[in-house]
Amino acid sequence: MDPDAVSKAFVEHYYTTFDSNRAGLVSLYQEGSMLTFEGQKIQGSQNIVAKLTSLPFQQCKHNITTVDCQPSGPAAGMLVFVSGNLQLAGEQHALKFSQMFHLVSNQGNYYVFNDIFRLNYA
Amino acid sequence: MDPDAVSKAFVEHYYTTFDSNRAGLVSLYQEGSMLTFEGQKIQGSQNIVAKLTSLPFQQCKHNITTVDCQPSGPAAGMLVFVSGNLQLAGEQHALKFSQMFHLVSNQGNYYVFNDIFRLNYA
Repeated sequence: MDPDAVSKAFVEHYYTTFDSNRAGLVSLYQEGSMLTFEGQKIQGSQNIVAKLTSLPFQQCKHNITTVDCQPSGPAAGMLVFVSGNLQLAGEQHALKFSQMFHLVSNQGNYYVFNDIFRLNYA
Repeated sequence: MDPDAVSKAFVEHYYTTFDSNRAGLVSLYQEGSMLTFEGQKIQGSQNIVAKLTSLPFQQCKHNITTVDCQPSGPAAGMLVFVSGNLQLAGEQHALKFSQMFHLVSNQGNYYVFNDIFRLNYA
């Protein structure tokens, strides 16, 4: 399995889901998963998706600029590092962001164990 | 041990060393370590430091804006996610960057197993 292909497919799936049906992200996390969103730490798939669905905008579109991937160690995990911009409905300027995911394999299926998101203010 | 304190101390040590004695970073990596620098993958402490010391500037100063940290899993690793800007000598404008490190414990001492660096162009 090609890690670059897996990470690219994951990134496409993640942001397409985020932009079309945020609540659907719940299946990508598990109980031990952690999100740090603009410095706020949130643990567990339900809490993470509650945070993401409560963000104060309805429509958004992520545009990805770069995706980097590395194996995270002997346990078949992957680190995925993303940069891009986020266009919110009704806003003139897109927001630049960086995000990293640690994907962990559970019997061949990857889920997000770590997720750290930051806006990159100009 | 407080992961936030460890990651903060690591970040301070890493960028102080980068800005004052780039070759000294060699002790923070090991043979299995990987750096992805602006999309280029480099493996092993010697190769990584050869890359960092060959970057086409002599003096630089990293200014850190945010540091986020999460435990990376059961093996006592830590993910550290940094955003900031990089001022190069002679350049008028600082460059924004994001960088992530996966720190792995080797008998109580952390080293950098994964390192992904990206400039965030405006």
